[in-house]
Amino acid sequence: MSRRDLIKEEILSIGEYVPGRSTNDIAHMYGFDPNSIIKLGSNENVLGPSPMAVEALINHAPQMSVYPSADASEMVNALSEYTGFPAHNIAASGPGMDGLIDGLMRLIVTRGNEIIIPAPTFAYYEIAARANGAVPVHIKRDENYAVDVEAVKNAESSHTRMVFLCSPNNPSGNIIPEEDVRAIAEFTHGFVFVDEAYVEFADSSLAHLVNKYDNIIVGRTFSKAFGLAGLRIGYGIMPQWLKLEYMRAATPFNVSGAAIAAGVAALSDKEHLTKSIELVREGRVFLKEHIPFKVHDSQANFVMVDVAPLKARDFCESLLTKGLIVRDCTSFFGAGNSLIRVTVGTKEQNKRVVEWFNEIKDL
Amino acid sequence: MSRRDLIKEEILSIGEYVPGRSTNDIAHMYGFDPNSIIKLGSNENVLGPSPMAVEALINHAPQMSVYPSADASEMVNALSEYTGFPAHNIAASGPGMDGLIDGLMRLIVTRGNEIIIPAPTFAYYEIAARANGAVPVHIKRDENYAVDVEAVKNAESSHTRMVFLCSPNNPSGNIIPEEDVRAIAEFTHGFVFVDEAYVEFADSSLAHLVNKYDNIIVGRTFSKAFGLAGLRIGYGIMPQWLKLEYMRAATPFNVSGAAIAAGVAALSDKEHLTKSIELVREGRVFLKEHIPFKVHDSQANFVMVDVAPLKARDFCESLLTKGLIVRDCTSFFGAGNSLIRVTVGTKEQNKRVVEWFNEIKDL
Repeated sequence: MSRRDLIKEEILSIGEYVPGRSTNDIAHMYGFDPNSIIKLGSNENVLGPSPMAVEALINHAPQMSVYPSADASEMVNALSEYTGFPAHNIAASGPGMDGLIDGLMRLIVTRGNEIIIPAPTFAYYEIAARANGAVPVHIKRDENYAVDVEAVKNAESSHTRMVFLCSPNNPSGNIIPEEDVRAIAEFTHGFVFVDEAYVEFADSSLAHLVNKYDNIIVGRTFSKAFGLAGLRIGYGIMPQWLKLEYMRAATPFNVSGAAIAAGVAALSDKEHLTKSIELVREGRVFLKEHIPFKVHDSQANFVMVDVAPLKARDFCESLLTKGLIVRDCTSFFGAGNSLIRVTVGTKEQNKRVVEWFNEIKDL
Repeated sequence: MSRRDLIKEEILSIGEYVPGRSTNDIAHMYGFDPNSIIKLGSNENVLGPSPMAVEALINHAPQMSVYPSADASEMVNALSEYTGFPAHNIAASGPGMDGLIDGLMRLIVTRGNEIIIPAPTFAYYEIAARANGAVPVHIKRDENYAVDVEAVKNAESSHTRMVFLCSPNNPSGNIIPEEDVRAIAEFTHGFVFVDEAYVEFADSSLAHLVNKYDNIIVGRTFSKAFGLAGLRIGYGIMPQWLKLEYMRAATPFNVSGAAIAAGVAALSDKEHLTKSIELVREGRVFLKEHIPFKVHDSQANFVMVDVAPLKARDFCESLLTKGLIVRDCTSFFGAGNSLIRVTVGTKEQNKRVVEWFNEIKDL
């Protein structure tokens, strides 16, 4: 007897898992020293982690055998100081912000519920929705990748449980205007999840709306500006009543002790944060000015490049032969086949990016 | 408008989250130096982490800014060597084995499905079931805490999706006989999850059954014998077909880079593992012989003590005044009110445990 029929049908609608190629794989494939590869494909902090976080992790090492606090209270308290929100509005999450999304999905989704996703955007929203039995309802962003509020309204139904608004949006880099978020929060039957993974690089945040609406959740991460992608830490800012419900259903001890130690230290290292943000702000201006294609305005630590009429896939493959990893956006639902996302690098890296984009465009 | 009605009713059946007291809280409450507190309440490795894992974590620290592999392939390969199973039978998980349970629940559970839980046992099975919309069906273990196979059979229905069998069982310490697992795997409509969190301390494992049944999953952890509770790493051994389905729905990058580095190193440190196991095997004999109450036989790194006619709650409170944290089992569903779970400590800690149990019994 096969038990395959016990797998929820919604799961089968999620694409098969294909392991990504590691930097080592790519180095081997193209004959590079792994250390010479420039990785600008995952929007990591190119300055690395805060030295204070490194020190905190090293000091924490002998305590790895002990369970962390179940709710990462030390980190929540540090986040309270960082964000200005009381601890009762903040939930720490792991693995990363994905863990927050997982917890929220299982809090509110039953089979047949709908999740609205303005595409192209971060791919995990769709997977988390399907994995919990919901139907993802994709709507198309406009030609500037802005969310079409009317289209969201038209997609709304009594089955709607969440609208995912990524701001700055991954992969396009634009933010959503506050009035649009307000409008959606007011007409939706469900919740609005504002994904601010890249907010430290942006001119403004929407987090203050959590105080004004009982259905807005803001998701954040330590993976970008704070340079701790490897530790998989996220957090949510949400109404107090919702945090109480969320904590019932969240996996306990979901933030590791190592993550708490390094995360709290990273929050206290204002210098590293400022340096990281300044590097990105200068770098994205440089990339926009010098990459010989349409580069969309970005408030994140990446820029989206449209290499049309060339194909993103071919272009990225050519960049790999130079030892540069960037993100081919073809796999983003609704992104077409000519978009590439490039993490803003160090000054030296950005120069190489520009140089190689110029070389390949003429191939 | 309140959105509280959007929370799934199953979530509301999960108890409200109450943050536990930390060692620091307890030290403060009873006037101890936190470092003098003896913590034998969470079945951590009292020898601490492997020195090789500590070194690996320290070396990893500067790479915290980089995403880990999405599927922790380095760890899966090391686990393949450790367990003898091919990598296609192994999925690494975070946070801990709980993350594996989360992923499996969302793979197979829709509202109204049933999960069979022989109680008393590990509490997270019930929470994970409810959080995913399933109904936990508790059946009572017998007077020796053995699983009553007939009772499982009677609890079975076409809605059954999983039977959770913890072996060695938390909190009772006994293992389930292989023929019982086989019988249940053969008659159940669903899957059998064998939780082997404590298997390194036991005389035998049931993992080989994964090769014989297409519905058996064995869960394991790095939190106990491997001394990495703080890093929250688990893994599952499961049929190849199921791993393929599982990977579609699992949260990507759910094992942190720090966890991969330390976990792989811990797997290679046979000396620390052997020392940890020997300490536990000797210690549990000592505790059974010297604790002046009924101590159940255990194949785990803890023993369960029945302090009847005294109340576990009062007894644990008295131990706290000595600076000893153990686990009051009153909160375990179906455990009654006189059971205490005590992690096997170092020789010195075990002597104190015995001394204090003797003092308190006469109060």
